[in-house]
Amino acid sequence: MKLLRYGERGAEKPGLLDADGTLRDLSGEVDDIDGAMLGADSLARLRALDPASLPAVTGTPRIGACVGRVGKLIGIGLNYSDHAAETGMAIPSEPITFLKATSAISGPYDPVLRPDHAEKLDWEVELGFVIGTRARRVSEADALSHVAGYTIVNDVSERCWQAERQGQWTKGKSHDTFAPIGPWLVTADEIADPHNLGMRLDVNGVRRQDGSSATLIFGIAHLVHYLSQFMTLEPGDIVTTGTPPGVGMGMSPQVWLQDGDVMRLEIDGLGHQEQTVMADR
Amino acid sequence: MKLLRYGERGAEKPGLLDADGTLRDLSGEVDDIDGAMLGADSLARLRALDPASLPAVTGTPRIGACVGRVGKLIGIGLNYSDHAAETGMAIPSEPITFLKATSAISGPYDPVLRPDHAEKLDWEVELGFVIGTRARRVSEADALSHVAGYTIVNDVSERCWQAERQGQWTKGKSHDTFAPIGPWLVTADEIADPHNLGMRLDVNGVRRQDGSSATLIFGIAHLVHYLSQFMTLEPGDIVTTGTPPGVGMGMSPQVWLQDGDVMRLEIDGLGHQEQTVMADR
Repeated sequence: MKLLRYGERGAEKPGLLDADGTLRDLSGEVDDIDGAMLGADSLARLRALDPASLPAVTGTPRIGACVGRVGKLIGIGLNYSDHAAETGMAIPSEPITFLKATSAISGPYDPVLRPDHAEKLDWEVELGFVIGTRARRVSEADALSHVAGYTIVNDVSERCWQAERQGQWTKGKSHDTFAPIGPWLVTADEIADPHNLGMRLDVNGVRRQDGSSATLIFGIAHLVHYLSQFMTLEPGDIVTTGTPPGVGMGMSPQVWLQDGDVMRLEIDGLGHQEQTVMADR
Repeated sequence: MKLLRYGERGAEKPGLLDADGTLRDLSGEVDDIDGAMLGADSLARLRALDPASLPAVTGTPRIGACVGRVGKLIGIGLNYSDHAAETGMAIPSEPITFLKATSAISGPYDPVLRPDHAEKLDWEVELGFVIGTRARRVSEADALSHVAGYTIVNDVSERCWQAERQGQWTKGKSHDTFAPIGPWLVTADEIADPHNLGMRLDVNGVRRQDGSSATLIFGIAHLVHYLSQFMTLEPGDIVTTGTPPGVGMGMSPQVWLQDGDVMRLEIDGLGHQEQTVMADR
């Protein structure tokens, strides 16, 4: 299934994209697309519905982030060997883990807001996965059973705030709109191999990132297992798994996003995102 | 007012501690102690109530974290000059900012869980403040109007996970139970000067930390202003402002918490916390 949330920010409704590309309203079935309904039983109940029996949504509503009430948005750093190389940093021996503020979460087509003091704004197309059931010190063998599905995350980053403003990446990863998520949560049963998905990001129509999750250093089962040793992963938590090469920081000379720039991201099977950078006044 | 939450984990009810030390049930007035009720108008309405008109709570229920549905738990690093010195790190030129996972939040008297692989478990008594109204790029002059009140936070830390496991402090700060918060949210009107509060932490009855918020490098108004340049602070967000000297990492030889150790924390006007370290199996 392709689950999504549509409507104005803060008032999104749950929806489903059917096989014909029609947006169907799930309000009669679930309160939201969130941790409370991402368990296997709940997803099985939705899967048993006839999509044609659900009301079609008219018009072209805003699409919100595909998961609501996210408790944790966990980022993994330098998880592609060739991206680590372009940043000049060593390949990590275990997953570099950081948190993005959940207040940074926005819809896949919402503008990315650039405050005046953000001068090194950068893009990062990433494969995100969404936790469906509580994971606390789980084995790698059991790990994938805790993943409800996959989505696209743009791990928008301000490189000066991230690296030049007193350690810890938090500030550079957490501004409002620095985490577009969606358009869909594609349930795990529809992704045959999450480690073989092409990932692309264009800026103003120029291809900047062209990678594949096949070159992830730490795969998804390992990440669930690993993270769950350090904190409990709760339903609705999202882990964004790192970015392939091609970020602005890695170019020579470096390139930073400017107001009016348009990012377009896509991952095989997960749809696409598009954001325009706007001055945040 | 001293606002608190009591009852079993995940089912806490809102309460108020009256001037006689009687716990009163606020369930008839508010759904929870959380961001939805921390604005000035809402607090004024509660302040106008006669506490004696509220039902007294019988028995001795568990006390939960004093704020529910916390969106962000933001930590400030090395914010006491003498603590920076004991860690061997430089005094920061601006606030070091990190996020603790909100799943780490626990009650002030709950046990602190130590997984087998946590070998360098440490304590940190900290003054926390709770956001009452949305703060987005606010001036330092306006900053304190966004603070609903103050509480104690034990910023429990695993030093190996924090510093020796591939950068970023997240892993060492985020295990379940690594953020006891409470017992009370003391509203800002009751704290004459948050920058002049004695802070103490004992382990097994031995005084380990004995400091004062008077020696904070970055004060609360500056922190609200500063953080709000990088991310919007939402009602119910908690900022824990750093720890004074006396952590186990700073001792010679270093001392780490063991199963059965008892931490007792207190801050003038904010009550006390007490946690026993327990093996997490």
